[in-house]
Amino acid sequence: MTPNRFYIEDASKFDGKVVTVRGWVYQKRSSGKIKFLIMRDGTGIMQGVLFAGESPAEAFDLFEKLTQESSVEVTGIIRAAPRQPGGYEMGIQSLRLVNLAEPYPITPKEHGVEFLMEHRHLWLRSQKQWAAIRVRHEIIRSIHEFFDNRGFIRFDAPILTPSACEGTSTLFGTNYFDEKAFLTQSGQLYGEVGAMAFGKVYVFGPTFRAEKSKTRKHLTEFWMVEPEVAYADLEDNMALGEAFIEHIVQSVLSRRAPELKILERDLTKLEAIRGPFPRISYDEALKVLEKRGLALPWGEDFGAPHETALGEEFGKPVFVHHMPSEIKAFYFKQSDMVGGPAVSGTGKYALGCDLIAPDGYGEIIGGGQREENTDVLKRRIAEHNLSEADYNWYLDLRRFGSVPHSGFGLGVERTVAWMTGVEHVRETIPFPRMMNTLRP
Amino acid sequence: MTPNRFYIEDASKFDGKVVTVRGWVYQKRSSGKIKFLIMRDGTGIMQGVLFAGESPAEAFDLFEKLTQESSVEVTGIIRAAPRQPGGYEMGIQSLRLVNLAEPYPITPKEHGVEFLMEHRHLWLRSQKQWAAIRVRHEIIRSIHEFFDNRGFIRFDAPILTPSACEGTSTLFGTNYFDEKAFLTQSGQLYGEVGAMAFGKVYVFGPTFRAEKSKTRKHLTEFWMVEPEVAYADLEDNMALGEAFIEHIVQSVLSRRAPELKILERDLTKLEAIRGPFPRISYDEALKVLEKRGLALPWGEDFGAPHETALGEEFGKPVFVHHMPSEIKAFYFKQSDMVGGPAVSGTGKYALGCDLIAPDGYGEIIGGGQREENTDVLKRRIAEHNLSEADYNWYLDLRRFGSVPHSGFGLGVERTVAWMTGVEHVRETIPFPRMMNTLRP
Repeated sequence: MTPNRFYIEDASKFDGKVVTVRGWVYQKRSSGKIKFLIMRDGTGIMQGVLFAGESPAEAFDLFEKLTQESSVEVTGIIRAAPRQPGGYEMGIQSLRLVNLAEPYPITPKEHGVEFLMEHRHLWLRSQKQWAAIRVRHEIIRSIHEFFDNRGFIRFDAPILTPSACEGTSTLFGTNYFDEKAFLTQSGQLYGEVGAMAFGKVYVFGPTFRAEKSKTRKHLTEFWMVEPEVAYADLEDNMALGEAFIEHIVQSVLSRRAPELKILERDLTKLEAIRGPFPRISYDEALKVLEKRGLALPWGEDFGAPHETALGEEFGKPVFVHHMPSEIKAFYFKQSDMVGGPAVSGTGKYALGCDLIAPDGYGEIIGGGQREENTDVLKRRIAEHNLSEADYNWYLDLRRFGSVPHSGFGLGVERTVAWMTGVEHVRETIPFPRMMNTLRP
Repeated sequence: MTPNRFYIEDASKFDGKVVTVRGWVYQKRSSGKIKFLIMRDGTGIMQGVLFAGESPAEAFDLFEKLTQESSVEVTGIIRAAPRQPGGYEMGIQSLRLVNLAEPYPITPKEHGVEFLMEHRHLWLRSQKQWAAIRVRHEIIRSIHEFFDNRGFIRFDAPILTPSACEGTSTLFGTNYFDEKAFLTQSGQLYGEVGAMAFGKVYVFGPTFRAEKSKTRKHLTEFWMVEPEVAYADLEDNMALGEAFIEHIVQSVLSRRAPELKILERDLTKLEAIRGPFPRISYDEALKVLEKRGLALPWGEDFGAPHETALGEEFGKPVFVHHMPSEIKAFYFKQSDMVGGPAVSGTGKYALGCDLIAPDGYGEIIGGGQREENTDVLKRRIAEHNLSEADYNWYLDLRRFGSVPHSGFGLGVERTVAWMTGVEHVRETIPFPRMMNTLRP
């Protein structure tokens, strides 16, 4: 690619210069002697202007023929246009057709979601979809940046696994030569291997759940980042999660403001996401919920209404820690009391910490401190009806130099939904996979 | 995690300061009145020194009990030690046992590969394995950096796909609710969607091949990065690939030199990887091979010996372009002659470009220019016995604003193997998946 190639997002660097946009027709309109060609090149949208009497006649003729999404090369002079998105427009000097598009199925009129999802490969060219994926890019970029700058090592967990992290009912299976393999639901257990070998690591990759749910928060294939740190306790874990979320929010705000504007996101809500985040125990959370008319018996997990209420109560992300042990996975370290000493395996509370996003976006971080005692872990594996043989390698992490360690998982798509304000996670990933959606 | 926490890799910033290493016993040895504790904390290895008469007696007693991989917190003063790896050591002031390790299975003696692979979760703590994964991290970091800095948008292709990119014999399948899904072999076709919506994108993620091969270059699960650019031809594609490889090599050399030293990598070979890379046609490559006693009939694909010979001939990566159409996939644009105009669908040559690494590491980049004509693409789909209905969405990219476009794929594990010099790709990923390896 020519190094000096022009892209619309760099227009401000080319003020007064003649450049060529290589892109597509987004819209066109006429106003008397003036024709407006709204062009997109994938990095942004810019208006090109044709003036009768000034611009070449061939360009006028071609303008009339152009259909939505036709590919064109448009040459002209870049000039400031403060009222235009991006602040610049082009005075068109010449116009070349690359390919005339057939009648484009996605027109400015309203379309049903089913239709748009079937045309996802084209829908992504529409402004809001485009903006959401650009925000997703920034979120993923800032995730890597956060951990890379702190000396974490990226540690890719396997996708094909022999056993299940949390039960087998929601697993996708496959024949792996002569045995059965499952698609990973979480890289955490492998991340713990990494923490013991590299001190601090993060797993980043796709995870899978074969859940028959059709909510706006569920995909069958979704991306997670899962940091894991040796010699780190529950408090360390919440401090890391807080700094992490602040970094993501600030990165999106500083680098993707134009996209957030397209998405009509209320920026004041994102600007309010600053630490310290409130940290409350599960017991305290129950009191808040009761006060808000959502009393919950001790020992039950939160549902969507409870998470929404907790988000409303604090107006920013809130950590809920020390959940009832029985609703948490086998690998959590436990305690007999909130704030008390960790008591391996005999505790009422799990040393977990979930971060609940405001505005009803639900749990975006789930994590906690892991059990480091071999015998306790063996007992917990048995209590959860898991096979000790399957977890023998995991137990080795305790047999050979066990240390306190903690970590968490952040769901990328939920975070994108929260940052962009989109209603449904299907718009947070290029090709969402859901119960009824495997195509395109 | 405490912000001021000490890690061994930062030792040079703490010269003369008292710090605590939180880590594991890597080795220990005695020399008269001096005891040496070789500690690792995941970020590096450092020697701690105990002096009889100076260091506390309890520390001496504990030192005797410590087993390999026991977890310890070691406090002491950091001081320059030019002959030590990293250039620093610690004068131990106190020693605290966190957990006494059971007899560690991986000792300094030789172990068979099968045994080490079964203990992969522990083997990763060994110096060479540790170093290779740290180089892998830097390669992945520099991949993201390269594209992010050039305005590419990360575009996650789906892992679960309804149809196959290149044949179905080597696919892992799964039941997806009421239908059949396959694990992706390449995100390229989806990447082309991204190029049309975002101008320039890169797919980064795991890909899968159920191949029954047991070579040192094959994994069933491996990571790929696949950039795709709209308005880019074969030349642009090679220029991008060349800049990309140069960036990766320079990043690894400048940031992971200590790891390359552990791996005993010949740095002069990596330092020689500077553009421009030779670019030869398939026809020219045949002549080179014939000269080297490896004559190949026109139309046949290269095998490992041919790739090795081409690497030897040039001593740096070499692009081979304009391959015979019949050995390339349906989506390649074609040409009747090398250097001649692209001739859609009637050409003898495919506008492909593969980059072959030196030293026998084989093809690390495969890519080319895509066919942009709807009718030609339909015919090619039929010729390859693929179902047009499955590719209807892909054809839409040509119906609605088709443009010349190109891209390539780079295999992460092969690149890690090349950079680190390890013999087998199983050491380039934390948990390799191979025909007989699904655990741990």
